[in-house]
Amino acid sequence: MERQVPEPTTRRLSLYLRVLADMEAGEVETTSSEQIARRCNLNPAQVRKDLAHFGGFGIRGVGYDVAGLRQAVAGILGLDRERPVLIVGAGNLGSALADYPGFNTGGFRIVALLDIDPAKIGTRTRRGAPVCPLEQLEDLVAKHGVEMAIIAVPAPAAPEVVDRLVAAGIRTVLNFAPVRPVVPDGVHVRHVDLKVELESLSFFLAEDEGDGEEEEDA
Amino acid sequence: MERQVPEPTTRRLSLYLRVLADMEAGEVETTSSEQIARRCNLNPAQVRKDLAHFGGFGIRGVGYDVAGLRQAVAGILGLDRERPVLIVGAGNLGSALADYPGFNTGGFRIVALLDIDPAKIGTRTRRGAPVCPLEQLEDLVAKHGVEMAIIAVPAPAAPEVVDRLVAAGIRTVLNFAPVRPVVPDGVHVRHVDLKVELESLSFFLAEDEGDGEEEEDA
Repeated sequence: MERQVPEPTTRRLSLYLRVLADMEAGEVETTSSEQIARRCNLNPAQVRKDLAHFGGFGIRGVGYDVAGLRQAVAGILGLDRERPVLIVGAGNLGSALADYPGFNTGGFRIVALLDIDPAKIGTRTRRGAPVCPLEQLEDLVAKHGVEMAIIAVPAPAAPEVVDRLVAAGIRTVLNFAPVRPVVPDGVHVRHVDLKVELESLSFFLAEDEGDGEEEEDA
Repeated sequence: MERQVPEPTTRRLSLYLRVLADMEAGEVETTSSEQIARRCNLNPAQVRKDLAHFGGFGIRGVGYDVAGLRQAVAGILGLDRERPVLIVGAGNLGSALADYPGFNTGGFRIVALLDIDPAKIGTRTRRGAPVCPLEQLEDLVAKHGVEMAIIAVPAPAAPEVVDRLVAAGIRTVLNFAPVRPVVPDGVHVRHVDLKVELESLSFFLAEDEGDGEEEEDA
């Protein structure tokens, strides 16, 4: 199996998984790189190349078996088993993420949220995830074999939280704090930068406004 | 000005803006496509190509003036003026987004959150954004000249919300609901799919586990 799979490939695999699950739910039995590509807004060569990283699944002239390919992609993504997840930070964002559709299904299980606020500790999110004291971080990681964490603390608190998570053995982190803490090799951190999303949308408004607004140079 | 700027370009512009703002804060006066590229984990040719969409800003052999390029990119992204934003859905996620660092600064202002829950209407988020009845959607859009909306309602409610936003004149939507509503041409919807982030991280765990686990075929 080839190593060093690029990050964008792993993201596309997740998209393929959703498309394949939709096809399977719609009782589609076979598909093609063209069909998958169209649903993902990609080109078919890209889809074929991504799947080739992990060995060939398709049969030339016939295409892909939907159920088989979905299982294979789920396996590649490690979603053929349960992944316990810890959320650090039980504020609005942490609570929202704990209850987010999809974070407690399809392979993931939110073990607990961690916080330092006594008013939050002992409560549960709407969907029932418990809020535990931050001191229990190491114990919870060990007890549940947690390997994934989500960071939803304010920016200044994030670097120390990351250090503790890494020391406790966590190897994958989804970071919502607007900072980029340094981690050792072998630890994967993904940053979700919501401001980038909003800013890049703003571009389209600016583009339209550009049509009639030349007075800035006047 | 060239039309049809690809969506990934608009995202990268937002990253360039952050890097340039950091440089400016650090009193760096000139930079190069190589330096920008390194900070964004991209190649320099990509940076030059992206900026070339909008005319040349650099001087060969000298590089880019940081402050000038930052202003230019902010202008391209339409962030040289205030953008009023509405959030539909005042649950955990909507409230978290209203208070998210960056959503009320650098060009954006959250006008209000809209909800149908009487217990929420009349309250404010921690940072002070008011929660208003959903019926006020059209009035608020008109009164504040809102052109951007964020959708943080449950999946079943999202399509109707999108229809109302579009009918009210909203042209850019950041959608957190795990559905992909159809919109007319000229309306830009960006989907933030948090599950894709988590799934693509899971890949790295699976990859490591793969080393020692060959018993699946046994």
